[in-house]
Amino acid sequence: MNRKVCWSPEDTILTVNAIAAPSATEPLVRTTIERRDLGPRDVLIEIRYAGVCHSDIHTVRGEWGSVPYPLTVGHEIVGRVAETGGEVTKHAVGDRVGVGCMVNSCRECENCRTGQEQYCLNGNTQTYAAVDRDGTVTQGGYSTHIVVDEDFVLRVPEAIPYEAAAPLLCAGITTYSPLSHWNAGPGTRVAVVGMGGLGHMAVKIAAAMGAEVTVLSQTLAKKDDGLAFGATHYHATREAGTFEALRNSFDLIINTVSAPIDMGAYLGLLRLNGTLVSVGAPAEPLPVPVFALFGSRASFAGSSIGGIAETQRMLDFCAERGIAPEVEIIKADEINEAYERVLSSDVRYRFVIDVDTLR
Amino acid sequence: MNRKVCWSPEDTILTVNAIAAPSATEPLVRTTIERRDLGPRDVLIEIRYAGVCHSDIHTVRGEWGSVPYPLTVGHEIVGRVAETGGEVTKHAVGDRVGVGCMVNSCRECENCRTGQEQYCLNGNTQTYAAVDRDGTVTQGGYSTHIVVDEDFVLRVPEAIPYEAAAPLLCAGITTYSPLSHWNAGPGTRVAVVGMGGLGHMAVKIAAAMGAEVTVLSQTLAKKDDGLAFGATHYHATREAGTFEALRNSFDLIINTVSAPIDMGAYLGLLRLNGTLVSVGAPAEPLPVPVFALFGSRASFAGSSIGGIAETQRMLDFCAERGIAPEVEIIKADEINEAYERVLSSDVRYRFVIDVDTLR
Repeated sequence: MNRKVCWSPEDTILTVNAIAAPSATEPLVRTTIERRDLGPRDVLIEIRYAGVCHSDIHTVRGEWGSVPYPLTVGHEIVGRVAETGGEVTKHAVGDRVGVGCMVNSCRECENCRTGQEQYCLNGNTQTYAAVDRDGTVTQGGYSTHIVVDEDFVLRVPEAIPYEAAAPLLCAGITTYSPLSHWNAGPGTRVAVVGMGGLGHMAVKIAAAMGAEVTVLSQTLAKKDDGLAFGATHYHATREAGTFEALRNSFDLIINTVSAPIDMGAYLGLLRLNGTLVSVGAPAEPLPVPVFALFGSRASFAGSSIGGIAETQRMLDFCAERGIAPEVEIIKADEINEAYERVLSSDVRYRFVIDVDTLR
Repeated sequence: MNRKVCWSPEDTILTVNAIAAPSATEPLVRTTIERRDLGPRDVLIEIRYAGVCHSDIHTVRGEWGSVPYPLTVGHEIVGRVAETGGEVTKHAVGDRVGVGCMVNSCRECENCRTGQEQYCLNGNTQTYAAVDRDGTVTQGGYSTHIVVDEDFVLRVPEAIPYEAAAPLLCAGITTYSPLSHWNAGPGTRVAVVGMGGLGHMAVKIAAAMGAEVTVLSQTLAKKDDGLAFGATHYHATREAGTFEALRNSFDLIINTVSAPIDMGAYLGLLRLNGTLVSVGAPAEPLPVPVFALFGSRASFAGSSIGGIAETQRMLDFCAERGIAPEVEIIKADEINEAYERVLSSDVRYRFVIDVDTLR
């Protein structure tokens, strides 16, 4: 175990290096946080890389509601199993593993029982800023170690590089799940709105599923990338005429943009029985012109990450198909600068913290 | 032919009695309107009954956009075939027939070719206030006769009384189509929002399909009716605690209310993968809290009437299952009073004009 990991005198609390937000308005700082004692079904993971998700920023800045400070965020976590509880059967010391956006759920409701823990009726336990079933507040992956129930730990196939695996745990599954649920594949026409961390994964995954993929981005700045990732068409939504030209074009639109969009304009792009799925959300309600749903029996839907078994399927799919996110590795001390760059869309396409720089 | 129907001197224009709106702000008045010369594929229908739909009121009052006045509305039309064009093969003189919300479509687009004329990509021709393919403005069913292309004329089964058949052509198909499309049936839990003309048909049809039906109405005033129509549960949405008690209860919600509803509250009633379908719409965009879609991968959809073949299936289904709307027959001269009563929800459950009182 790394020398900077120290068990407390009672040998029940693990103190580890981390980056935390002291408040909604201060920069993130280096600190230490505590991890719970390893329970019989827990896995201690030595984190190697942690992705930087826009949700992290919304959360630490209190934009999605109040959170307990100081708070360590990060829910795109990969590393190696360092220790296992006595009853752990799914993972062994040394395994390459990952943790995504949730670390527990009730396991008893109808959704948990069908492997859809992300829709746990009693509320799943988010990886950070949530109260875990043991009463502690969860702290995320900008940290050297994490303790997680083995059922919420994913296997990371050897074919996926460590640093590339991290963003799959949120950006990957968040786009894979709706693409899978709404049957993206040969013969379907999929539009991806936004070419950020989620959007670029949506393009790669939808193309690998066999769909015909169109990117709808504000400008053509990332067009070459989009086509390289597997898109067939790429349109600038700021250009006059784009929406008129693309009327009745798509079976499925994956909207990765959290800012409000002109719903009437986007719904008009759907073919009969088409669905626009948002995987990001503005804090304020989005005005939907209901008449815009009538013209094509359109649906406006939401999708939230994916279940654990589904996340494993996504990882295996990406390994088989050679799909990996585009990442820019940063050091721990570069996190505040990285946040600013995320906010100005200056990242291609996901920052990933090299957690070795935290040790 | 009825004595008050007169062919013009050129024998090409038919002048018939009707009720029309002179403007957006004046009461409806008796008048005469012209029907086009019978084309080779046209059917002349002697109208017996015409239903009064809330859409008629929105339209004549200009609430859904400007319309050409004077205007005769009515899109729940039943009667008997009085004459047929030379090439008509689907209907014969004397047949019991009906006409709903559309009287033509392009017939060439991908949606028309698959029998989904209501979603015609070139715009179907509405039964009133639209420009027909021959350039004339369509006039609706508050009239003694109408001329319609045979492809848009439905067969009304003998088992359905004339006066009861009329509301099936709009209220019936508008609720049958989404119930059918979203698979209402044994094992599914359907909620119907609103117990008006559309709502009471949705209850009867959903129950006949085998679904477990719950009515969500502002008050319990129509509870006995709702249960008699086939609902198992009936809740008042104005009562505190209703929305909390019914969380995660429904696979499908049919919203028949045109006024804005609290979308966050209603979306919270859906089970995993549930859909809230609006068949009525407020003029203003409806604010949708996108986070409310995330919790159960919910969809908010719209549905518009039904295709011609589907409308025929609906009529046949209602005939087989003994389903008919509850109607209150009025005379032509009672139309303005009826409009006021519709607006104050004082009708159980659909006014139908006895068109014999117009002759």
